[in-house]
Order: sequence, then structure tokens, then C-alpha cells
Amino acid sequence: MERDAPGAPEQVAILGLGLMGGSLGLALRRAWPATARTGYDAAPGVAERARARGAIDRAAASVAEALRGASLVVIAAPTLAAESLLREIGAHWDTLAPDAIVTDVCSVKRPVIDWARALLPKSARFAGGHPMAGSERDGIDAADANLYAGARWVITPTSETAPDTLARVEALARVVGAHPLVIDATTHDEAVAGASHLPLTVAAALAGALAEDPSWPLVASLASSGYRDTTRIAAGDPIMGRDILLANYERVLARLDAFAAALERLRTAMARGDGAALEALLRKARDARRTWETDRERADGGADRVL
Amino acid sequence: MERDAPGAPEQVAILGLGLMGGSLGLALRRAWPATARTGYDAAPGVAERARARGAIDRAAASVAEALRGASLVVIAAPTLAAESLLREIGAHWDTLAPDAIVTDVCSVKRPVIDWARALLPKSARFAGGHPMAGSERDGIDAADANLYAGARWVITPTSETAPDTLARVEALARVVGAHPLVIDATTHDEAVAGASHLPLTVAAALAGALAEDPSWPLVASLASSGYRDTTRIAAGDPIMGRDILLANYERVLARLDAFAAALERLRTAMARGDGAALEALLRKARDARRTWETDRERADGGADRVL
Repeated sequence: MERDAPGAPEQVAILGLGLMGGSLGLALRRAWPATARTGYDAAPGVAERARARGAIDRAAASVAEALRGASLVVIAAPTLAAESLLREIGAHWDTLAPDAIVTDVCSVKRPVIDWARALLPKSARFAGGHPMAGSERDGIDAADANLYAGARWVITPTSETAPDTLARVEALARVVGAHPLVIDATTHDEAVAGASHLPLTVAAALAGALAEDPSWPLVASLASSGYRDTTRIAAGDPIMGRDILLANYERVLARLDAFAAALERLRTAMARGDGAALEALLRKARDARRTWETDRERADGGADRVL
Repeated sequence: MERDAPGAPEQVAILGLGLMGGSLGLALRRAWPATARTGYDAAPGVAERARARGAIDRAAASVAEALRGASLVVIAAPTLAAESLLREIGAHWDTLAPDAIVTDVCSVKRPVIDWARALLPKSARFAGGHPMAGSERDGIDAADANLYAGARWVITPTSETAPDTLARVEALARVVGAHPLVIDATTHDEAVAGASHLPLTVAAALAGALAEDPSWPLVASLASSGYRDTTRIAAGDPIMGRDILLANYERVLARLDAFAAALERLRTAMARGDGAALEALLRKARDARRTWETDRERADGGADRVL
């Protein structure tokens, strides 16, 4: 029998078996081969497909069944679905293994942490998590054992999170190839409103606006890599997107204001025929984007904590 | 000696040796090995680097020198630079080969065609062109012999363009692996305002807005493939971008209005917490983007003309 990495749990429960949960299951099969992986998904047939793909060992018919005996519970559902899942985990807390911890991979952390605080027992071991990985493909069929390899995995402890709980969530991130980064939930939500949720909103508005114009058939036939990349994330799961934007709407709206101001500057420069201003704006955007890419290529994990 | 494809010109002059002109030179070296490729670039040293990379055979010190004896002239400079190049071509028309034709690869076609009409002799053989290919990298060092392979190459004749001239520009597109599509210049400019210029503007506003926020260092460290793709084209050449947006500003401004309206609908749904409306908007955008991708994978050249 293969020797597992230190800290491999005996049994993991994955709640939600779409792209994120399914990919986690596939990655854990490789990383923790001796760990039993139980999975649940609210959509009929999904858990069975996850089992057939090897993402889990056992498809549970209910959340309660998935939780029984688990020492690591991972919520991998759209953000707003985390509330009812946390309520169920709280209700069945006594059926978990005695050392059980709970984490999640939802994109917005403040509400999830608040629900965990309200719905889990006071003694529960919980830390939020958010791997910065994804795809415009969704569902169990898009699951990929390498989805998390090289990605940042943000971990957001609460004030009650014990160091041991945090260490075990960090171990989960590392074992699937991700780089843990521990920050507080509000800082996270503020940052991803810019890094992910504003780009999603902009991509959706772009794809939506172009598609509803009468000229769309010709535009579509001329659209090339520029359109393809700018709108790629608009092709993602609309339920996941809806939950993210609702759960983080205040911060996204603030980012939208800044974006609208930047767009207005470009519009004004164009309308005035002000080539110097237009070039300066494009150059600033270009420099920021190129610096980001260079820094990213240089980075290889780096410091894990910027609390 | 290798046998050239039918219609290979004896001498090509490429005016502008950045990504587009350099890539064309590299592609033509392979496609038309017996054709002499002369090149000119306004920036010091660029023509020499293009020669060193094999994109041209001979670096000309002036436009006039590059034109001498050429039977195919390709303008591959930023859109607004095409005016003075066309003026020089007009002034040196008699030094071209007797059967010479002129085309360009600029991103906006209406102004280029108007300049060609005004600045070339009445008898000049001209048709505009615009290969729908590019990269966020720019300059001769980014030139790539395969840049045009599989791309649409829009050709926009004027009312004076003879069928033979059109056929020769189509042959140029085909010989580098592109698919010619003949449409009129106004239709082209209207369509690329949506397919390319709106995405460029949006990407630049996004990269610019995020980079000027105080939270940018953390946002940058969390930014992943969503940010990367949504902003990729903002990393392109700011001079080229400036010229495109100035030359096509009326059509881009109209597209910006439609984009702003789509963004406003998303914003309203978020602000109201209207999950059903938000999901419907995201789903519409997703469906359009996915259909585009499916159609694109199915297409393999298809019909070349939609006049």
C-alpha cells in the first residue's frame, strides 16, 4: 500500500461535484490514495458521474450520508448554496469524525465565514478557502486533476480558527499543488472584486452587448483572438457567476465605478480626437498588464502569508 | 530552383516592419521563395533587424528606395501612418513595376481607402486589406511566419478596384494561409468596431482601472486566468491602438454606448439583489459566447464572400 503524505485524512466529504469539487476529488485520488472520498451533489446523477470519473469513491444520496465519519469536509458549491450546506453540517456535526475540520472553495469569503459562525457549533473547526483557479467550462465533465496545480489558494481563517485547523487546510491546498495564502476574508473579498468579479462582469457585458446587436452574425465571423480572450470567462457557469456577484455586490459595484471612470477617460479622448491622451491611457494599461505578466512569470509560490 | 505559386510577384515592398509586416515577410519567404522582399520601417534599426530575422531580403533606407521596381506594395504601418505612406507611393508611382498593385493591412479601412483615392494616381491598382490576426506582443521581434495561418483576411475593394487587382490581393492572403473575405469598407469598419475595437477599449479600461487602485499589489497577486485573458489585448502596441480608435472613433463610441447599457443592466440586477435577472443576463452572454466558439470550431474557411 502506498504511503500517504503526512496528515492525509481517513475520509473526505466533498459537497458539490462540479468543476471545483470534481477537480479536487481527482487531485486527491492521486495525492491521498488511501483517503476515502465521499461526494454529494444536489443535481441528480452528478455524484454518480463523479464516481464513474474517479473523482469520488462513493456517491452519497444526501448531505448527511456524505458527512458520516468524514474528518475533512469541503464545500464546493456555488457561494449562496454554502449557507444551507453549513446548516446541514451543523445539524449533523456529531456524525463527523471527532477531529473533523470544515473548509470551502467558494469565491466570496465574508458571507461564508458569517454563516459558518452562525450555523456550526461553537467548538467547530472551520477556515474558509478560495483556490484562484477555474475554467469557462463547468460541471463534473470538465473536472481536471491538475486544475489547482500552481494556483494561489487563499485561506481565510476566522478569529476562532485554531492554528492546527489552519495548518490542515494549508496541507489540503499544498497536496493538490496549490500555494496557500492566508489573508482575512474582507481583504480577500475586496481584492477578488477587482481580480475576478469585475473582469467577469465586464466580459459578460461585452459578450451580451455584441450578441444582441443586429450586426452580430458578421461581427462573430470577424471576431478573432481579441474577442475570444476578452469574453472567455463570460462562458462560465451562470449560477456560480450570479452567486458571486450577489454575494460580493457592494465591492463589485465600487469596482464598476472605477472601471466606468477609466472607460469614460478613453471615450473622451476618442471623442476629442486627443491622440496624446489616448496613447497615454493605452500605454498605462499596457505597462500595468505587461508588468503583471512579468511578475507572474517570475513568481513561483513566494511568500505564503500577507496577513 | 523552387517553382513558385502562380502569381508570385517578382518584388514585394513591405512598408512597416512590426508584428504585421514582419510576419508577412516571414510568411512570404516560405510561400514565394523567389520573390525579392524589400522592407522599410520609419523607426531606426528596425529594417536591419527584419533583414537579420529573414523577414526581408533588403532593408531600404527610404520609402522611395523600397518602392523602386516593386510589383506588390503592402502598407503594414499603424492606421494613421498610412496617409503619408500613400502620399509617398503616389509621388513615386512611376518607379513601381508596370503591373504594380497596392494593398494594406490596417485595422480601419474607410480612411485608408479615402486616402488611396485622393493620393494615388487615378489609374492606380489598389484594394484595402485587413487580416484578422494579431498578438499582444508587438514589433519585429514578435513576428511569426504563422501569424496569418487560418485567419480571416478581409479585403475591401473600392469602386475602382479591377477584378484582377482583387484576385491578386486574395492570392496574397491565401498564400500565407489566410481566408480572404471580400466586404465593403464601411461594413468592415462597423463590424470590427464590435469584434476588435470595443474589446480593446474595454480591456484597456479594465487594466487601467485596476492598476491605479491602491489595492493593486494584492489584486495583482490574486489575479489569475480571468484577469489574464480579459486584459490580454490591452498589452498591445499603444500607437497601433491609438490609431485604430481615432480612425474608427464614431463607430467605437456607438459600440461603447451599447456596452454601457449592457453593463448597466448587470449593475442594476446586482444592486437590487435580483438573482433571476442577473442569472438571465449571464446565461445570455454565456450562450452567445459558447455558440460563437462552437461555430468557429466548425468553420474552416467557408464562403469567402459576403458582399
